[in-house]
Amino acid sequence: MPDQLAEARARALDFLTRAGIVLTPQEAEAIEIADFGLGELERTGLQLVTYINTARVCAKELVLFPGQTCPEHRHPPVDGEPGKEETFRCRLGTVYLYVEGEGDAATAACLPPAGREHTYTVWREIVLQPGEQHTIPPDTKHWFQAGAAGAVVSEFSTRSRDEADVFTDPVIVRTPAY
Amino acid sequence: MPDQLAEARARALDFLTRAGIVLTPQEAEAIEIADFGLGELERTGLQLVTYINTARVCAKELVLFPGQTCPEHRHPPVDGEPGKEETFRCRLGTVYLYVEGEGDAATAACLPPAGREHTYTVWREIVLQPGEQHTIPPDTKHWFQAGAAGAVVSEFSTRSRDEADVFTDPVIVRTPAY
Repeated sequence: MPDQLAEARARALDFLTRAGIVLTPQEAEAIEIADFGLGELERTGLQLVTYINTARVCAKELVLFPGQTCPEHRHPPVDGEPGKEETFRCRLGTVYLYVEGEGDAATAACLPPAGREHTYTVWREIVLQPGEQHTIPPDTKHWFQAGAAGAVVSEFSTRSRDEADVFTDPVIVRTPAY
Repeated sequence: MPDQLAEARARALDFLTRAGIVLTPQEAEAIEIADFGLGELERTGLQLVTYINTARVCAKELVLFPGQTCPEHRHPPVDGEPGKEETFRCRLGTVYLYVEGEGDAATAACLPPAGREHTYTVWREIVLQPGEQHTIPPDTKHWFQAGAAGAVVSEFSTRSRDEADVFTDPVIVRTPAY
């Protein structure tokens, strides 16, 4: 795993650099690699840089490798606060975002990761190119997949509590990440 | 003013482009130019793109022309909520941030705008280069100035309410901006 981790980090850093995003050396070394416990990072996974995560505000950069999927989940209320509200803004590549609403798997641009199709249930499709963004209300199911060139997406949100996220796929473990 | 506005917008867009930041055509046309009512934009002013500003989260890009200063202000509590908490992350150029704490005008890297020196009172100096960031707690006086090459700074914060900001300079009017 250490080699695979280092390789994923280097690859994510290359995407960020091509998006014009500068990291400190410490941030570059600490890029988070999340395989959601499925052990198939290329297919289902996400690379993250968390700039700030306080009780009130969170900001991250998300990197998706070509065709990589962040699996379906929602952010429920925690401790009497509404769930996480998040805005995704595409910086590089194309990201296909699926949220609750009108839509059909049969006509969607993306296929869910093979073997996990039963864990993808929302199909309202939003396609984001660089400069385009979409806000997801709290407690709303969503998932997203990069196009063939991968993607870099900025996330602006309320507090992030990964441990509170609810994934549709019962096999998924969000934490620990690497 | 229309010509000056268009020129300031074009100039701000050039800084954003050099920082690798992509805007939609609508966003580029709507870049906010704030001269704080002082009528000396080159010296005291700020150019802004607001990506999102909900009841809970706000994200912006700030552009500072070479040597331009955003004047001293704080974000007080509003409607029983703590004031705005903001994180500044430098993307391009150098930004000199001054906040409450130990520091001395005599040894600071920046001079306040000529004629308004009496309205700058905090001198803890934080220098941010690309990839570096600093978080300012609510209700804390702060001001910032770009280095000789200008700067682009991402701001991640709680809700932004410009009309609630308290400026040290009584002459300043934050709104309306253009």
